[in-house]
Amino acid sequence: MTAKDAYEPLTAETLGARLAGIDLLAGKVGPDPTQWDVQEVGDGNLNLVFIVKGPQGAAIVKQALPYVRLVGDSWPLPLYRAFYEYHALTREAARDPGAVPEVWHFDETQALVVMEFLSPHRILRQKLIAGERVDGLAERLGLFCARTGFRGSELSMKSADKKADVGLFSGNVEIPAITEGLVFTDPYFEAELNNHTPGLDPVIKILRDDPALKARAQRMLLKFSANTETLLHGDLHSGSVMATEDDVRVIDPEFAQYGPLGFDIGMLTANYLMAYFSQPGHRGDDLAAYQDWLLEVIEGTFAAYEAEFTRLWDNERTGMLYPAALFEDQGHSSAAARTELLAEIWQDAVSICGIEMHRRCLSLAHNADFEEIADPAIRAPLEARNLMMGRDLILNAAKIDSPRALTDLARQHNGKDVL
Amino acid sequence: MTAKDAYEPLTAETLGARLAGIDLLAGKVGPDPTQWDVQEVGDGNLNLVFIVKGPQGAAIVKQALPYVRLVGDSWPLPLYRAFYEYHALTREAARDPGAVPEVWHFDETQALVVMEFLSPHRILRQKLIAGERVDGLAERLGLFCARTGFRGSELSMKSADKKADVGLFSGNVEIPAITEGLVFTDPYFEAELNNHTPGLDPVIKILRDDPALKARAQRMLLKFSANTETLLHGDLHSGSVMATEDDVRVIDPEFAQYGPLGFDIGMLTANYLMAYFSQPGHRGDDLAAYQDWLLEVIEGTFAAYEAEFTRLWDNERTGMLYPAALFEDQGHSSAAARTELLAEIWQDAVSICGIEMHRRCLSLAHNADFEEIADPAIRAPLEARNLMMGRDLILNAAKIDSPRALTDLARQHNGKDVL
Repeated sequence: MTAKDAYEPLTAETLGARLAGIDLLAGKVGPDPTQWDVQEVGDGNLNLVFIVKGPQGAAIVKQALPYVRLVGDSWPLPLYRAFYEYHALTREAARDPGAVPEVWHFDETQALVVMEFLSPHRILRQKLIAGERVDGLAERLGLFCARTGFRGSELSMKSADKKADVGLFSGNVEIPAITEGLVFTDPYFEAELNNHTPGLDPVIKILRDDPALKARAQRMLLKFSANTETLLHGDLHSGSVMATEDDVRVIDPEFAQYGPLGFDIGMLTANYLMAYFSQPGHRGDDLAAYQDWLLEVIEGTFAAYEAEFTRLWDNERTGMLYPAALFEDQGHSSAAARTELLAEIWQDAVSICGIEMHRRCLSLAHNADFEEIADPAIRAPLEARNLMMGRDLILNAAKIDSPRALTDLARQHNGKDVL
Repeated sequence: MTAKDAYEPLTAETLGARLAGIDLLAGKVGPDPTQWDVQEVGDGNLNLVFIVKGPQGAAIVKQALPYVRLVGDSWPLPLYRAFYEYHALTREAARDPGAVPEVWHFDETQALVVMEFLSPHRILRQKLIAGERVDGLAERLGLFCARTGFRGSELSMKSADKKADVGLFSGNVEIPAITEGLVFTDPYFEAELNNHTPGLDPVIKILRDDPALKARAQRMLLKFSANTETLLHGDLHSGSVMATEDDVRVIDPEFAQYGPLGFDIGMLTANYLMAYFSQPGHRGDDLAAYQDWLLEVIEGTFAAYEAEFTRLWDNERTGMLYPAALFEDQGHSSAAARTELLAEIWQDAVSICGIEMHRRCLSLAHNADFEEIADPAIRAPLEARNLMMGRDLILNAAKIDSPRALTDLARQHNGKDVL
């Protein structure tokens, strides 16, 4: 390997010279890198992110670092995650055209992806904290979950293609391990990297003193880690979505892995619920109306998911699962089979939603929705509502039989203080 | 590749000259291949199997053929299955020492495994047809399923090791595809390779006219094909077991793949039940006593499974799942979590059992238990009982809450004619 080939993190100063040879980038931004304006804007937990602006346009350059940026080089993390992110982006683009940024270049050695700069899009989480609405949000992400889920499964794919892809993604160990630990296990014991808002101890004690709750969380971990139903985005929270007032795009699938169909939509729902429970720390007069809108988004997301899943079931069921030979070709409807499968996906989503609500307040990587409430005396009771609702979802998933039942439960917890 | 390296099927005549250079084989059988007595004895569906006897001992040489032997070269099948069989044998030997034949040599290019010759062992299925008992059968195979299941999962394994192994086995596509088609789907429509005993049509109509039953079978196919809980044997029927009157060994794991914990023990149970329902075609005076023994074997297998799973849970729970940090270290028992997981494994086993009972009478590869009943007028009503019990297991798995409930159900179906 020559020095040119060895991995080296980019800087705003070196980026122009190092990436000038990428024709597609030069074509999009402008041919002369001395005219490029480069800013490092990575505010996430893991990577370098540069915005490159030139006379002809702009691009994003995302480069993996060999460690967790949030923690530092004491927590190494393989560069290969850029490889999986690239493969996830191309699959998502094929399965749900227009949902993700266009990829212009991938360099495996440098662990970098060059892609479309989304503008004037902003991170959805910041818009939700600011009380902004996004037209079509529910429908767009419901479609995304249904299309990537269905089309990435053996409901649609040829088995040989899907199994080869499971083999490809099985090389990714460290990234799923982060989710396995931080999401499913750390909230329920005193893990080293945990932190939580002062005052939450009584609620945390309720969670950790409940072996039935911990058993359900671990059962979901078994489903998450030993299940290849479809290729997940793997980290579909409101920080992985960029939006304008009426356009929505999904970014950052570096946690992509095979897993249960209900995972992405379950995690997304949890992040809407955390937006919901945190709103009293951000809103005044318009609080109730905005909270109502957030619950409408949740219901609308599942409605869009179910409608699209049904449409794909009826029109694109080309995999080996639930073949027409057993149903339609014999004069039998497969609608009941689909309803039964959707009910199982829903149950998984509800349980995962509850777990995600816990880990975001108790484990390492907290949400800005709560973190930006500066006063812990205001933050703690809101987080407590969120934690108690998560507990309900995990323990009573089987009894929560519809999105409406879930949003009704949210309203109950929103008015019920446990601290 | 030289001619010496190219794959070429062995014959009884060429085996000695071609394998004389394998030191471990020569050491076990004798150094002079001209003194070897070689017989081809493959009576299975897929492979060449040779017994090699010499002055010092004997060995088995098993070589894959590039097609399905049962069907002919119109159904090609990759030679790589020998590679997976070899890896499965070594993992089974490590996880349940003494359960499988010792492997002495593996040649990937020739797709052959040289291993211990088991004598005076005979195929368990033939012993069951002959009305012979095997002491310790239930315990031995209950232990095998529990040990390979538990120790091959992330209850025990380090995640990185398990995920790497999932990647290794994900290269195996065609072998799982056989199970996926023949077991889960073909019984429920007029698949090209199907055959069944004349007279069964009314029962087959009941099965194929039931979309709820077909939906359950397909739900289990989704679990089978998109689940990596543990490394399965994958074909654990009574033809994959060799026994004396008191020794039991498991052979032929070429269908090994990652799948649900309940799969192997479910398929095994189905084969005991088919032995049970077929007995009136083979036995006279001792019929009732022998049938009772078969049901005792089923109950004993699950009892041994549960006891060993519990022992391993308490002593070898070293994987990331259900860690002591969440239970014992916090002063909480994990027994309820284990019981809940065992109940789910049981439910999967019951459903898979029912499906296996169907496919062995309706799909391509039938069981000698029924096939050796020459008179279709005797065979058909016995197969009908078996099919109707399989239907009960699939439709009512959730209500069959114990091995005793399952054996009680078998007794009911044994006395109930539907034809």
